[in-house]
Amino acid sequence: MDHLQLDRLFNPKTIAMIGASSVPGKWGFMVLLNILKGGYAGTVYPVNPKGESILGLPCYRSIGEIPGTVDLAIITVPASSVSSLIDDCGKKEIPNVIVITSDFSETGHGGAILERHIVEKARGYGMRIVGPNTMGVFSAGPRLNALMPPVEPLHGPVSMFSQSGNVGTQMLSWGAEEGVGFEKYVSSGNEGDLTCEDYLRYFGQDSASRVILAYLEGVDPGSRLLPVAREISPRKPVIVFKGGRTRAGAHAAASHSGAIAGALGIYQAVFRQAGMIEVSSTQGLVDCAKAFSLCPVPRSNRVAVLTRGGGWGVITADALEENGLLLPPLPGDLVEKLDRILPRYWSRGNPIDMVAVVTAEPFMACLEILAQWEGVDAVLALGGRTGKLAMGSFRSQEVLSRLGIEETALARMEATFSEGQRKVNALLRQLMEQIGKPIISVTMGSNDGEPTESEERRTITYPTPERAVRALAALWQYRRIKDDVATTGQ
Amino acid sequence: MDHLQLDRLFNPKTIAMIGASSVPGKWGFMVLLNILKGGYAGTVYPVNPKGESILGLPCYRSIGEIPGTVDLAIITVPASSVSSLIDDCGKKEIPNVIVITSDFSETGHGGAILERHIVEKARGYGMRIVGPNTMGVFSAGPRLNALMPPVEPLHGPVSMFSQSGNVGTQMLSWGAEEGVGFEKYVSSGNEGDLTCEDYLRYFGQDSASRVILAYLEGVDPGSRLLPVAREISPRKPVIVFKGGRTRAGAHAAASHSGAIAGALGIYQAVFRQAGMIEVSSTQGLVDCAKAFSLCPVPRSNRVAVLTRGGGWGVITADALEENGLLLPPLPGDLVEKLDRILPRYWSRGNPIDMVAVVTAEPFMACLEILAQWEGVDAVLALGGRTGKLAMGSFRSQEVLSRLGIEETALARMEATFSEGQRKVNALLRQLMEQIGKPIISVTMGSNDGEPTESEERRTITYPTPERAVRALAALWQYRRIKDDVATTGQ
Repeated sequence: MDHLQLDRLFNPKTIAMIGASSVPGKWGFMVLLNILKGGYAGTVYPVNPKGESILGLPCYRSIGEIPGTVDLAIITVPASSVSSLIDDCGKKEIPNVIVITSDFSETGHGGAILERHIVEKARGYGMRIVGPNTMGVFSAGPRLNALMPPVEPLHGPVSMFSQSGNVGTQMLSWGAEEGVGFEKYVSSGNEGDLTCEDYLRYFGQDSASRVILAYLEGVDPGSRLLPVAREISPRKPVIVFKGGRTRAGAHAAASHSGAIAGALGIYQAVFRQAGMIEVSSTQGLVDCAKAFSLCPVPRSNRVAVLTRGGGWGVITADALEENGLLLPPLPGDLVEKLDRILPRYWSRGNPIDMVAVVTAEPFMACLEILAQWEGVDAVLALGGRTGKLAMGSFRSQEVLSRLGIEETALARMEATFSEGQRKVNALLRQLMEQIGKPIISVTMGSNDGEPTESEERRTITYPTPERAVRALAALWQYRRIKDDVATTGQ
Repeated sequence: MDHLQLDRLFNPKTIAMIGASSVPGKWGFMVLLNILKGGYAGTVYPVNPKGESILGLPCYRSIGEIPGTVDLAIITVPASSVSSLIDDCGKKEIPNVIVITSDFSETGHGGAILERHIVEKARGYGMRIVGPNTMGVFSAGPRLNALMPPVEPLHGPVSMFSQSGNVGTQMLSWGAEEGVGFEKYVSSGNEGDLTCEDYLRYFGQDSASRVILAYLEGVDPGSRLLPVAREISPRKPVIVFKGGRTRAGAHAAASHSGAIAGALGIYQAVFRQAGMIEVSSTQGLVDCAKAFSLCPVPRSNRVAVLTRGGGWGVITADALEENGLLLPPLPGDLVEKLDRILPRYWSRGNPIDMVAVVTAEPFMACLEILAQWEGVDAVLALGGRTGKLAMGSFRSQEVLSRLGIEETALARMEATFSEGQRKVNALLRQLMEQIGKPIISVTMGSNDGEPTESEERRTITYPTPERAVRALAALWQYRRIKDDVATTGQ
């Protein structure tokens, strides 16, 4: 029942945009603009007492004037006007209202009273409220981008709820830069009515949400968030980043979301019990979202590392051991296979150091052998992307002509490199799909070589081995969460 | 004496490029091309028995044919030919030779014998050798880019030596993307003759090298690297990233550089004793290089945090406490000053949460107050860069015209934002210079807004608060290293 009601929140056919404005910079303009340029599949009704046309749409003076059913109302008007608008929405039988308006419980006692008042009123109508003081909602299915900041999320399997609107929307934006696609997102705001627990339960039941991400600051003592997470986690990963882990952070959180951040230091154990995967940095949250979106869950913690440069192999080996992952030694038959491809002075160990072999073909041949090796359940391919590093400096025509370098020779070399790159990427994707192990590319220090085409985005890439290893360690942690449940028969 | 000889290595007036080639892809082509397009200020003599013109330069059949003095020879020919070339260089009285050629001690016993042979021969001539198996040398002064991969480093105060050529050159390339400029760089290769100790001592005495970076895998038991570091560290920061910290990493290092990685786990204490700043990730190495290049060293660990979004303040507060930095409470007079600028519901605590104030002016006014506050010695400014996030979605003309949005209104808004951005950046730089405290900007999840103009690059920026905090913690660690020496009177 709640699920159906929240389904109308995330998949509304009709939206009333209350406080719609034609003044750039006003939230009633920004949110409406985001909805329209996002290509929202349903109908949006701007509501403004002035009744003008806004952003090319006919405007309604009041909610009552809107013809037909409204699934969702979005309110951006000042706090003092919200209460009577809730009545209007109630009379119109609108099931869900997003209250973007701030100046409620987050600003003190007076705001808290007003917040309780509108929530109680809404409940009387059987209405659910997102917020108040929320930065909005995103949903890929109906192409609904009802957010305050002009973020354009990629579409993908990740659904997120966030107790900070800024952190959440910037994750959407950051995800878009790093190829992480989102299915649904909600900024939970003050959680006057709907709470993180509700969103988590909904995402758990929503088949389009395959990976769940959470930014949490504090959870109400009566919340069932953790048991709900425990029920969901064997079926889909629940990744959490906790703000307010320290005394200083908890103090800041109390003044931010008003959340009681709870006894310091108990969260880690509690998250673990609930089968949640805790990450320790904002970067880790994005990196994990990417890994869980693109990779299968490995069967073991045994990893092969392929590298073109010994030092990077050393750094990766350190990171693996520090994160509880293993580098099994190469069996004799595998060494023999690799001997046929590599120069005689290759490392003959794992990491497999190809030593200054820069062409794509031997790299690909090694990759295939390692992916098929039954002794490992994941492969890290370092330096798969050589294109940018190799060609960066040949771009200047001025330099070329000054040096009298034949341009065609360099163009051929460049074409060879980028063609090699495409082939390596395609093989990485193909092997991961066929063999069902994480096969992760590491570019080492450069995001610029990142794939931008949507097909290419399915090649999983990190700029540093440490980030790749931490993401892989999270995948392995999730395997144990699943296995643990299987063993104990839950 | 050694210093003068190494000075000729890093500031050669003339270079013999032995094994120069006109075949793209060959190292004798790549290195020469890098030297030429880098705009090397001296004269380079290609040497090749075929004696053709290479890359527009007259070519010499042998080293002996080169007229006048040669300060530096670079050798890329196969290992078997190196020994007789060392003789030729010796007869020509060339003081320094970079042996890029591999297949020496790193490939086994035979190679080790050959390496010892050429080093002994070179020493007989009073010649110093970089490598063998090095990826080359960079030096900003003479614009010398004698590197194998086509990297184009930015010029700046950082000098680096690396026991992995790949790690080192990719740091140069990565640094260029993140605005970190280099003064000198050397890939130490097999360290058959010159070792890390020599390079460190040289950088310590070189006034142009203001920040020293090191990638280390292992140090010979007889090395004086650590006492040399201890002598230098009170005068300039020595930042080290250690490969082979774990059993797996040390094992990989042994097969890579042949270095004996030493007893596990003792390095941290040893680096600390030597006054070196150890970083724990490749990203940390780049981030620290940036902080030490651009920031003054703070007098205390007290920090003010300015943010536009409460959640980011919480995350930053956690990171600060986890890294031993403090957020002092705001004194009453400071609260009063900020009250005049901020909306009535601002946080009134540190972090200073401006709460949804998106314009530049109040941000700048707060920044100025915080920078001048004597209770803190560093400021983190979160969300100073709003340009990209704010404007990203307004770029599509198609969308604008479909929605009938007046383009000029949006263009005005965009101009306001980017003008605000420029003003904020200029103020960040100006305050840091005037007041002498680190004033660090954090973009939160986006590198795209990074300054690219050389003036703008002096604004210090990180994409995540965690990275900014770790870099700031390293600056604070360096303050204690300096103070410790001052106290103990060393």
